[in-house]
Amino acid sequence: MTNFRTVELSPVPLYTQVKENLRERILDGTYPAHAKLPAESELSTIFGVSRITVRQALSDLQKEGVIFKIPGKGTFVAKPKAFQQLTQLEGFGEAMSRMGYEIYNQVTSHKTIAATPHVAQQLQVAVGTEVTEIKRIRHLNREPVSLEVTYLAQDIGERLAREDLATRDIFLILENDYGIPLGRADLQVDAILADDTLAHALRVQQGSAVLRIERLTHRADGAPLDFEYLYFRGDAFQYRLQINRRP
Amino acid sequence: MTNFRTVELSPVPLYTQVKENLRERILDGTYPAHAKLPAESELSTIFGVSRITVRQALSDLQKEGVIFKIPGKGTFVAKPKAFQQLTQLEGFGEAMSRMGYEIYNQVTSHKTIAATPHVAQQLQVAVGTEVTEIKRIRHLNREPVSLEVTYLAQDIGERLAREDLATRDIFLILENDYGIPLGRADLQVDAILADDTLAHALRVQQGSAVLRIERLTHRADGAPLDFEYLYFRGDAFQYRLQINRRP
Repeated sequence: MTNFRTVELSPVPLYTQVKENLRERILDGTYPAHAKLPAESELSTIFGVSRITVRQALSDLQKEGVIFKIPGKGTFVAKPKAFQQLTQLEGFGEAMSRMGYEIYNQVTSHKTIAATPHVAQQLQVAVGTEVTEIKRIRHLNREPVSLEVTYLAQDIGERLAREDLATRDIFLILENDYGIPLGRADLQVDAILADDTLAHALRVQQGSAVLRIERLTHRADGAPLDFEYLYFRGDAFQYRLQINRRP
Repeated sequence: MTNFRTVELSPVPLYTQVKENLRERILDGTYPAHAKLPAESELSTIFGVSRITVRQALSDLQKEGVIFKIPGKGTFVAKPKAFQQLTQLEGFGEAMSRMGYEIYNQVTSHKTIAATPHVAQQLQVAVGTEVTEIKRIRHLNREPVSLEVTYLAQDIGERLAREDLATRDIFLILENDYGIPLGRADLQVDAILADDTLAHALRVQQGSAVLRIERLTHRADGAPLDFEYLYFRGDAFQYRLQINRRP
């Protein structure tokens, strides 16, 4: 006997049951990364449901980035996502290369622009001040995983134009080569859909899920140093962090 | 004269210029929250570009959640997003009510289920163990902002069925009423697209951007206590946090 308050809006739909069952089979290794899933017709037989139900379940798992489709080839299990710990401020390259990934940054633009109101506010300069804007597409194991747009004071930006940004993190160059110790960073994290520019840079479809970070990194003395927009492929990346109940 | 390495893949497209200009006008308050934007034909005149270009710029801003369309009424500036600081582990209600929001939780389901492999692994129980699953839709100022799916040991889950979960955080009930001090939480943050279930719960379109969190909260003594999936509307919510270069 149960005295639970049950306020179910509806019974669990069939396609949700199929979806959760498939998800478990992927998580428990029945279908490992890169494995091809059985065809829709086979799944329909396995679960005893219609092909429409199977298709709905697969469509949802695809939206979550758990599986992906190759037209004419079938449906495959996606790789587990790469992740970065947010416990400590680290450049993407530092964090990823320690985990054994091969890193490559494609610098698509490095130029002087007039600071927009938002960039000016973050870097604490007047609107219209000349600042450096650097755009990089970060690759993990040769696949694009993020677009990073970085704004810095022009003197630092010009020095950076002479560095090897294809393989080195800006954070490490600032600290080790320029002797500018980094302090805290303020992050804002949300989710958006890929527009045309992002879709092109990250080689995903328009309307794919993107994890967006705004990050303002300060010098150890508290002055703002480096303002960035980081756009990560939702299907390829996650952030991880630990927080405590008591500070 | 500049000695910049310039590796621009293409000049900035017109619609991007229009988009960034509109974004700045929204950020600087020219078009405040809830303001109606000029019609496409007017924007086309203002910027001296085609209506197709205007439409592309508006479509991108809509994907980012900066503006929204009401069919037959026009295009409007979205409210700034609600945000939660991740500096310290807090329930959503604690964090939001301190910021002056009106909170309401709609409990859509509260029942016993057999632990799936993933839930069992998180809570450190055997697969198939009976655990409590609670689904809540969190409302901020009467609008749905997140769907939270919570898994707890059955004895605690049954006690919670008798509590006022519509207005109180589970965290506060566990600590203040049950005397279970909370310790650290492990979070995983990524971005997905809303499937049918999420779209229905959060009152957004299928395929909208969703910020997804997996959160495992431990007791102060380190034992796992509360495992959750949190799904936030990308257009209505962001997380904020500070991290330091040195631990």
